[in-house]
Order: sequence, then structure tokens, then C-alpha cells
Amino acid sequence: MRKSHHSVILLGFGNIGRELARLLDRKASILKDSYGITYSVTGIATARHGMAIDPEGIDVQTALTLVETGKSLDELSRFPIHSSLDFIHRSRGDVLFENSPVNHLTGQPALDHVRTALESGMHVCTANKGAVVYGYHELRRIANVKNRKFRFESTVMDGAPIFSLFRENLPALQLDAFKGVLNSTTNLILTRMESGDSFEDAVRFTQEIGLAETDPAADVDGWDAAIKVAALITVLMDTPFTPQQVQRKGIRKISQEMVCKAKEDGKRYKLVCSAKRLGESISAQVAPELVSASSVLYHVEGSTSIVEFETDVLGKLSIVETDPGPSTTAYGLLADFINVVIHP
Amino acid sequence: MRKSHHSVILLGFGNIGRELARLLDRKASILKDSYGITYSVTGIATARHGMAIDPEGIDVQTALTLVETGKSLDELSRFPIHSSLDFIHRSRGDVLFENSPVNHLTGQPALDHVRTALESGMHVCTANKGAVVYGYHELRRIANVKNRKFRFESTVMDGAPIFSLFRENLPALQLDAFKGVLNSTTNLILTRMESGDSFEDAVRFTQEIGLAETDPAADVDGWDAAIKVAALITVLMDTPFTPQQVQRKGIRKISQEMVCKAKEDGKRYKLVCSAKRLGESISAQVAPELVSASSVLYHVEGSTSIVEFETDVLGKLSIVETDPGPSTTAYGLLADFINVVIHP
Repeated sequence: MRKSHHSVILLGFGNIGRELARLLDRKASILKDSYGITYSVTGIATARHGMAIDPEGIDVQTALTLVETGKSLDELSRFPIHSSLDFIHRSRGDVLFENSPVNHLTGQPALDHVRTALESGMHVCTANKGAVVYGYHELRRIANVKNRKFRFESTVMDGAPIFSLFRENLPALQLDAFKGVLNSTTNLILTRMESGDSFEDAVRFTQEIGLAETDPAADVDGWDAAIKVAALITVLMDTPFTPQQVQRKGIRKISQEMVCKAKEDGKRYKLVCSAKRLGESISAQVAPELVSASSVLYHVEGSTSIVEFETDVLGKLSIVETDPGPSTTAYGLLADFINVVIHP
Repeated sequence: MRKSHHSVILLGFGNIGRELARLLDRKASILKDSYGITYSVTGIATARHGMAIDPEGIDVQTALTLVETGKSLDELSRFPIHSSLDFIHRSRGDVLFENSPVNHLTGQPALDHVRTALESGMHVCTANKGAVVYGYHELRRIANVKNRKFRFESTVMDGAPIFSLFRENLPALQLDAFKGVLNSTTNLILTRMESGDSFEDAVRFTQEIGLAETDPAADVDGWDAAIKVAALITVLMDTPFTPQQVQRKGIRKISQEMVCKAKEDGKRYKLVCSAKRLGESISAQVAPELVSASSVLYHVEGSTSIVEFETDVLGKLSIVETDPGPSTTAYGLLADFINVVIHP
């Protein structure tokens, strides 16, 4: 077993970034014993809680405590840092974990972060869909030139293997179409409405448990689902595709009455994502659909997600992620990290 | 792209072996253009239709026609061959595709075939569960010493990625338990019984469509399911496990009346496979279970199969293969072949 040590930097230290820091720590001995991997966190950058770089290694527990008690990371830094790009340049890390908030319309600033890190010779692992949808082909090119890797397993269905599945396990196969339920928040809202919640109450519930943002538009208007569809098409069908190209309809027009009527008829509304090849072009939709009990989508409850792939040689192949936990997205980033450094 | 040429030999030229030969041919240009892989079939061995070795390459179309019209392959051989082991030794192939019939109790003769080929310096790809269950740890050791690969993706759920998923995509993760419907024949029998078939008629139907063997015991008594459970435990939980160690109950005691009564109650019988860690040991079962509509297993129809994994960091992760076609198992072998030769 080849031994390797890596300086990792975390840009974004919200729920995902912090969960990743905890998971890296929890898995430190298996990383070392099974993969020969050791690491130190040498940089952490946040939007509202300061930034720190320490080439000797930052004490992650202290950083977690500072941020979770509303304090700044600045005091942990060996020198002042002026911006997120300055953070990347001066960190001299080996691997960037990019987990800044997603911008559905431009992919920024994640796109600049990833580009800068790759150009500086870092591997990049991200859960940010924007960077994939608005930069995949360019970023892949830069990564190839620099002999680095750009990985993003956690962008769709948390840590469930989707992109790595097609990259590693399904060679010489053509993806013809896919269909799925990819947005947990709307799925949980629709499930709650079946139990009698109004749309507003259901939205509030998803906000209270930390699933939906303060502005639920990205979820209920279908943007999050559309950007996931665009990411799948861009990478798995190797065709640049933006969320704006996805025919998108959200769930605002689905009333509680409609949901109850559907339930009486043995049916359910689901926000269904789908795409298929039509000759040289690709057609993609996000829209509420009335599905019956014979559909596999009918049984996707709460925050569970599913995608069903149609290919030229396998029968339909589906991946289902049931009740993802807080470490699920972090695990996708960890898996990317391990695969990047053990297959140099 | 590194270019490579490979002599491949096929031991077993039944449904799977022949389908693989066709799929290799169908995918020849993508193998060459996307992976730099060219190949020639230099040996084909069958139990009842002779054997042939030709270092210059066998015309596969001719071989298919000979076997499918009940003739012998011997006429295509450059020299007489005395046995399957003689075939392996003298073929001087680079890659063996081992697809001889499964022996649930000993794994032979597949085990000897795989061992001999690895010791002779060949990579081996197989759809034969026996070799995995009775030889995995030994064969992996030989493969490591010889710097060759032993791959067997098609042994469970045809070509759906299961073993490669844990090997490539899910590092540093512990599998705690799994549950699934892994035998298509019994699932189709139970589905037919729900539509009014007697057990005997349903069995006959699965034989007529070529799914079940003339002696349906391996399926209806749960041996096929048990050997798949044993293979998953052996490899994914890294613990040698035989089908005899699986608590096994088949479907012979499920009467048409029981199936209809269950249907009235909104339930279905499924032959459920399951395993879980209990401290240092592993407990495994194959048995008919009455499942309700809220279970994902309820909705597995006909020849569809499913497995749900429980791990320490992901939520439950399920893989569903819906309506596998004839090329599905062959595709698993092809994917193994590509991955073996592009990652030397």
C-alpha cells in the first residue's frame, strides 16, 4: 500500500462542510490503515465566520466550536486572507473541498473557486451543482491538462454513487433516458400534504427541520430538480445542458384538494425529473405528475430519492437512496477524495 | 489512450457465452475507439459441442452457427484438445471468460478452471457463482501473486453493478446488512400464482420461457438465492460463507390458496434474501416472506430483482434491475473485461 499525506482545504463550512470535517475525523483510522491516507486540514473558509489558513494544520474541533457558537475563524489563521480566491491561492492545499452555496443561474462563485484550484494544481471535490452545470467540460479540460481530478459525486442524490457508477462500473454503455424523484424537499412537502397539511404548512415544516431554505423557491419552483437533471445530462450524456433548458414546472399549483383527490384514486403527485435522447438532441422535464401504485416512483416517501436509468444493454437500472442521514452528502465527498488520491 | 490487444477464450458457450460473443462483436468499435481495446477469440470450449483453439482467431459467427445447429466446434480447432483444463493450458489466452454451469455444492469444475487460468497468468471474468463462493479468498490471493484480476460482476443480479460498486465507489464504508429479491425464477412463479396459476403450471411456464432449468430445484428450493447471498457476504463482508450456512427455505410450501389469501389482504409472498452482522458473526436467510405494499420488495415484479444495502454512513442504498434482457449478464462480463484491461 502506497502511503500518502494530503493537505485539504475546506471552502464552505456550513452543514455539509462541517459534517465532512467530522466524517474525515471519524474515518481517519480506516483511511490510514486501509488506504495509507493521512491528511491535515490546512485551510477553512466561510462567508460569514471568517477564514483561516495554517500550513501546520488547523485544529478542526476548535474550528467547529468557533463556527457553531457564531464566532470567527480568523483567530486560527497564520495570516490575514482577503477573499475566497486569495484563500485558495495562499492555502497551497493538495485538495479543495468546495461547498459554497449553489447559484442556479450562473454557478458562481463556485465555478471560479474550482477553476482557480485546478489551475493551482489541486484536486477538487464538490457538492456544488452549479460548478458542474456551468463548467463541467471546461473544468474537466483544465483538470486533464494539470493532471488533477475534478469530482462531484455529492451533487445529485447526496452520497449515492451516480456519476462514479457511469465512470467506473458501466463502460461502453449508452444512456438513453432517465427518470426520477431528485428533490427531497418537494417530495416531503407532497407527502405531508397527503396527511392533511396545507402547502404553506408543509413548506414551513420542511424549513423547521432544516431541509428547505428560508426562501423555498429553489425547491418548490423546481430549480433544484432542474439543475440536477442538467448535471446528469451534462456529465452522463456528455452534452452541456443548463437548468434553463429543462422544461420546468414546480409544485405551487398542486393544491391540498388535488393531493387528496389523487389519494382517493390510489394515486400520488410526484415532482418527476426526466430526460431522454431524441435523435441528436435531448429533451428534459421537471414537472408534477400523477403516478399510480404500479410505478416505482409512487413508493418514494419523504426525503428518499430515486433515479431509473435506461441504457442500451442493461434492463432499467435504478438507484434508490432511502432516508439519507446528515453524513450522506459528506460521504460522497469522502469517497471522491479517497478515489482521487489512491488513483493518482 | 493506451492501445491493447487481447486473446480471449470462452469456456462455456451456452446462452451466456454466446450472448457475450455477440455483445463483444456489437461493441467492437466502441471498445476500439473509446478504450483502445481490440480482441480476438482464440478459444471456445463447450461440454457437449466440442472445443476449439486457434491462435489466429476463431470466426465467431461460424462457431455460433455450429453450436446453434447442434454441430461440434472441433473442426475449427488447430489441434485436438483433451479436457477443459487442457483447453486452458494450451490456449495461451490473455483473458478467460468462465461460464460453465454452476455447482451449488462444490463450485466445481469452475473453481479448477479459474485457478488454472489465474496460475497460467490470465485474467478471469466469470458469471459462475460457485467459483466465488467456494474460492474467492484463495483465487484473489493467486490473482494478486500473479498480478492478474479475478472478476465476477455477473454472478449476482446479472450485469447490474454490485461488486464493482463496493470495490470502486464505496470506499471506507462498512456494510452492516442487506435484504433483497435475488432469484428471478421464484419471483416470476409467485407472480404467476397471484394471477391464478397453480405452482406446477407456474414452474412449467418459467421452464417454457427458458428461465428455469429442467430440474427447478435450484430455484424453488432456494439454492440459487442462497448461493447469491453467500457470494455477497463472502465478498462484500469479506467473510467466507457457503450456501449451506444460509438458513434456507424454498417456496414449495406456498400454495396457490396462500398466495390468493395474501393478495386479498393486500400482501404478497416474496422469496426474501437477507443477511446481517451480529457482533463478529453474520446471520443469513433465504425464506418466503409475506410483505405489505409499504415494502419496496412488494413492487418487485416478474424477473426484476432488487437489493437494499444498509451501511454505516449512507442511508439505505438500493439497486433495482428491472426486466433484465438477454444481454444483461453478458454486459456484466464485458464491463469486467474492459475494467480489467484498462486498469492493468
